[in-house]
Amino acid sequence: MKNGKLHVITNGKQSNDKLINIAKIIHPFIDAIHIREKAKTAQQIYHLVQQLYKNGVPSSKLIINDRVDVAQVCKVKGVQLAYHSLPVQEVKDSFPSLQVGCSCHSLEEGGRAQRNGAQYILFGHIFTSNSKPGVPPKGLKALSRVSRQLDIPVIAIGGITPKHVSQVMKAGASGIAVMSGVWEARDPLNAVQSYKKHLIDRGS
Amino acid sequence: MKNGKLHVITNGKQSNDKLINIAKIIHPFIDAIHIREKAKTAQQIYHLVQQLYKNGVPSSKLIINDRVDVAQVCKVKGVQLAYHSLPVQEVKDSFPSLQVGCSCHSLEEGGRAQRNGAQYILFGHIFTSNSKPGVPPKGLKALSRVSRQLDIPVIAIGGITPKHVSQVMKAGASGIAVMSGVWEARDPLNAVQSYKKHLIDRGS
Repeated sequence: MKNGKLHVITNGKQSNDKLINIAKIIHPFIDAIHIREKAKTAQQIYHLVQQLYKNGVPSSKLIINDRVDVAQVCKVKGVQLAYHSLPVQEVKDSFPSLQVGCSCHSLEEGGRAQRNGAQYILFGHIFTSNSKPGVPPKGLKALSRVSRQLDIPVIAIGGITPKHVSQVMKAGASGIAVMSGVWEARDPLNAVQSYKKHLIDRGS
Repeated sequence: MKNGKLHVITNGKQSNDKLINIAKIIHPFIDAIHIREKAKTAQQIYHLVQQLYKNGVPSSKLIINDRVDVAQVCKVKGVQLAYHSLPVQEVKDSFPSLQVGCSCHSLEEGGRAQRNGAQYILFGHIFTSNSKPGVPPKGLKALSRVSRQLDIPVIAIGGITPKHVSQVMKAGASGIAVMSGVWEARDPLNAVQSYKKHLIDRGS
């Protein structure tokens, strides 16, 4: 049985120094770091990625949120597109070397992303999450429906703690994505290992 | 003698409808429309460009500010990069089909843009401008110095009215860029023609 994937997504709240220090420790143990720094300019994201490279974080582990141009120039693995981003199909056509992930909040959005060529989706939020205050979570049933009906991997996101991982994986997710659970953990490497343990224990 | 170029740059204050209505009237008489809509998402800029295409504005007249990815996907003529954008050289390397312009505020910045492969610069602001309140204008002497020392075209921007055009062209500019002078004119086509008249009368 495949191990579940672990994506770690920045939340725009860390200083560059803190972000880099954590990233260089955790990258060998995770599948992807998403640079999701909405308040940063293209230049700032570009420089952050150069710093990550200098600190040994490989391009194969980096995904840039929304800014396809920065992803292309920095030759990272992929881009994560949201509703406000360029259309998936256009990005696939113009940037064939980039892996394209899509953030979805319904089966309909997930189906459209798949038809348009997305290689995986992030689906959520699954549980109540500090980053989505007041928005009701989708829950495990919706995750299960989406995972069953799509052919591409579904990465679950939103309020996932290590304790939730086995339920999330049983619902059909191919992995999980975590934000504050890693960046704001007292010991981010320990948090990563704690998530990993449950992702590896999948199905046991 | 070459006629001066006329670039018209959106200022983020027009509704899409108004912007499109003006663009479809003025495009035959100008050299470039810059889509500079900083508050809009990539998706919104993409859709705006599609609307401009449907209304007959040709890709050869469109330049997108900062979002190189949107420029690439929409196959417009070029991108306009600013300080906060991706580095000129990286954009030239990764997006060879796009014309690259660079917004500069000093001879030093202009020289760097030229060395890095920019095909032209916007230099300003030349006169007191509503879009740069409290920032002292560069004036015609600085424009003259920059135009003399660079080999690439220098397009002057900032507070330029039709009356200023001949002084600006005498200072060595290859053309001018206008924002509110067109979008906020009572009759934008008339404003464009008024600028054009002086750009054609150059040197006479």
